[in-house]
Amino acid sequence: MRKSNKEIKDQEVIRELLETAHVGRLGTVAADGYPMVKPLNFAYSNGKIYFHSAKEGEKIEDIRRDNRVCFEVDLPIAFVKGTDNPCSAEYLYRSVIIKGRAHIVEDAQEKAFGLRLLMEKYQPEAGYGEFPEGKLAITSVVRIDVEEINGKEDLGKDNLKESALKALRDKANLPIVIKPI
Amino acid sequence: MRKSNKEIKDQEVIRELLETAHVGRLGTVAADGYPMVKPLNFAYSNGKIYFHSAKEGEKIEDIRRDNRVCFEVDLPIAFVKGTDNPCSAEYLYRSVIIKGRAHIVEDAQEKAFGLRLLMEKYQPEAGYGEFPEGKLAITSVVRIDVEEINGKEDLGKDNLKESALKALRDKANLPIVIKPI
Repeated sequence: MRKSNKEIKDQEVIRELLETAHVGRLGTVAADGYPMVKPLNFAYSNGKIYFHSAKEGEKIEDIRRDNRVCFEVDLPIAFVKGTDNPCSAEYLYRSVIIKGRAHIVEDAQEKAFGLRLLMEKYQPEAGYGEFPEGKLAITSVVRIDVEEINGKEDLGKDNLKESALKALRDKANLPIVIKPI
Repeated sequence: MRKSNKEIKDQEVIRELLETAHVGRLGTVAADGYPMVKPLNFAYSNGKIYFHSAKEGEKIEDIRRDNRVCFEVDLPIAFVKGTDNPCSAEYLYRSVIIKGRAHIVEDAQEKAFGLRLLMEKYQPEAGYGEFPEGKLAITSVVRIDVEEINGKEDLGKDNLKESALKALRDKANLPIVIKPI
């Protein structure tokens, strides 16, 4: 990272972003050498990212070929209008970028652990019953072991007060949870 | 893309997502061979993505080394709770994934065009004056020429009605614009 004044030094802030964001983006290198970026739901626990996937598909093929991945999470906070000139406009955000190695989980217990972690994150009040055996067999669970983690933020020229930031965040990007329609 | 039932076939839907999303993610391949994903503000016009950047830094170095990039935009809509079992939970979203080639814009006129496009998107009511010459000299503008574009969506098992979708989107991910604090 170039501008160290934007670095998030508080590991709790990084952890909170990873634990609350509903969507992260997985970066892989595709078969043709192009980078590939895909959005996905995930759970973070103790230096590890878990997500699930179909048994086959580009993500799984990419990881089998080369398991070096990037995982990105961001919280766009607000665009601040420019007044004097366009360069006075700014975009407030927090982001976390992870470099790591992805592993397709083969162990049944760890697979169940990863899936439970996902449900506990997205539906903490539970009430969704048990994982059907048949579904487990056709689902891949992937674990990313974090090798490097960098948080970055721009909270405005004078740094937003935590209360103002919280109000903006509440309006901004809080994920929506609904019952089946 | 594996599941063609999730493909967005309406090009207008793809265009609208690219024109309204405040943040996209650039995928590059880093010097060490790892994929890299970075969030950024951008403008889309007519098959081209424009963003700006410092003159030096990882993004610019990556593009100079290998200009094949991915550009991803997503709109998380809502998590739908699981009831019978965890597999009945679903995440509603729209996303666009672009493969393309990135070019650092050298032409002064195109550079100005790209920067204007950005300001017109984020601050359409204008009122931000002119770009200072000095700032132009220290800013890079990058253009991504789109080679392939894929839209994907999951609007729920019975496909959300456009009105329900709009209500969710209005609550979900609409970017915030504020005046300087």
